[in-house]
Amino acid sequence: MDRLQRQLQFILEIDRLKSVYRRTYLIDGTRHENSAEHSWHLALLAMTLAEHANQPLDVAKVIKMVLIHDIVEIDAGDTYFYDAQDEKAALEKLAADRIFGLLPQDQEKEFRDLWNEFESGATAEARFATALDRFIPQLHNYYTRGRSWKEHGITPDRVLTRNIEISNGSVTLWEWTQTLIAQAASEGLFEGEK
Amino acid sequence: MDRLQRQLQFILEIDRLKSVYRRTYLIDGTRHENSAEHSWHLALLAMTLAEHANQPLDVAKVIKMVLIHDIVEIDAGDTYFYDAQDEKAALEKLAADRIFGLLPQDQEKEFRDLWNEFESGATAEARFATALDRFIPQLHNYYTRGRSWKEHGITPDRVLTRNIEISNGSVTLWEWTQTLIAQAASEGLFEGEK
Repeated sequence: MDRLQRQLQFILEIDRLKSVYRRTYLIDGTRHENSAEHSWHLALLAMTLAEHANQPLDVAKVIKMVLIHDIVEIDAGDTYFYDAQDEKAALEKLAADRIFGLLPQDQEKEFRDLWNEFESGATAEARFATALDRFIPQLHNYYTRGRSWKEHGITPDRVLTRNIEISNGSVTLWEWTQTLIAQAASEGLFEGEK
Repeated sequence: MDRLQRQLQFILEIDRLKSVYRRTYLIDGTRHENSAEHSWHLALLAMTLAEHANQPLDVAKVIKMVLIHDIVEIDAGDTYFYDAQDEKAALEKLAADRIFGLLPQDQEKEFRDLWNEFESGATAEARFATALDRFIPQLHNYYTRGRSWKEHGITPDRVLTRNIEISNGSVTLWEWTQTLIAQAASEGLFEGEK
């Protein structure tokens, strides 16, 4: 029962990810998105778009990776992707120690290994998971008429430079992203540029 | 590209699940939970608690099932578990037709088969997925001091009668639930009984 208690402690703790808000808005623009529902959305992207990955991959592993990739934000917070990332790695490592450390040791290792693999970008699964994580905010931004881009003075060049990692996971999604950003620029969705 | 367009149409459409709210509250009590973040939470339960299933199972399949099981609520809404379920099945079937129908045909079939299997409860994976779906609200209720139970006049007997399906997926989680409900009753968390 001690094992189940530890597992449930983890389950209770991660509920807090539902209260970590990102800069992106829901597609209908009603509010900011939180990191738990974002992780769910990414898992559905993995289930739906895996065929567009550059390499054949273990889809179940990608799903697990995206489901846990943001749990560290419970302690470390959501760092805006276009802000400086200096302290992010150290804070997130401490968070992983604490939160995954709630689990029984074998599961702590399993979750930690998955998270390390995601962070390293060393495998086809990690690169595709990262590609999805970079790809989905472009959709949210485009369909909310560039709202988050405008609020933060993001330029089309900056989007393309900062998100080129999409191409490491999926050239198809990267080409689609480039077309979308060009379309967004032509529609004036970056007009708030600083 | 038509295939990718259809997939992205589905991805955009399911964003709406983030705006379908359940009767349960977040563990910290700050707001109601939505069905997208609930689905994420269930996937983490599947990853963490699979060893407590009555039968060996394909965990990846359970994860996929819980990730998609509530998508039909985008059209059908969230039916409160203790309310009459008369129209639910018909509404959800129409919703599945429309929403999974956005996908390319092979993926529509894959998602629809997963959802049908979940609804049927015919496999070990479906029974465990249902067990998790019935189990987690008990934790949310207990840790919010019975808030949703009180608001809806739910009695301990009703919780146990209505959630006995947990035992079909996991006797361990069912025993744990019975202990939790007894504890909750002893702490007066059902005092709002009608």
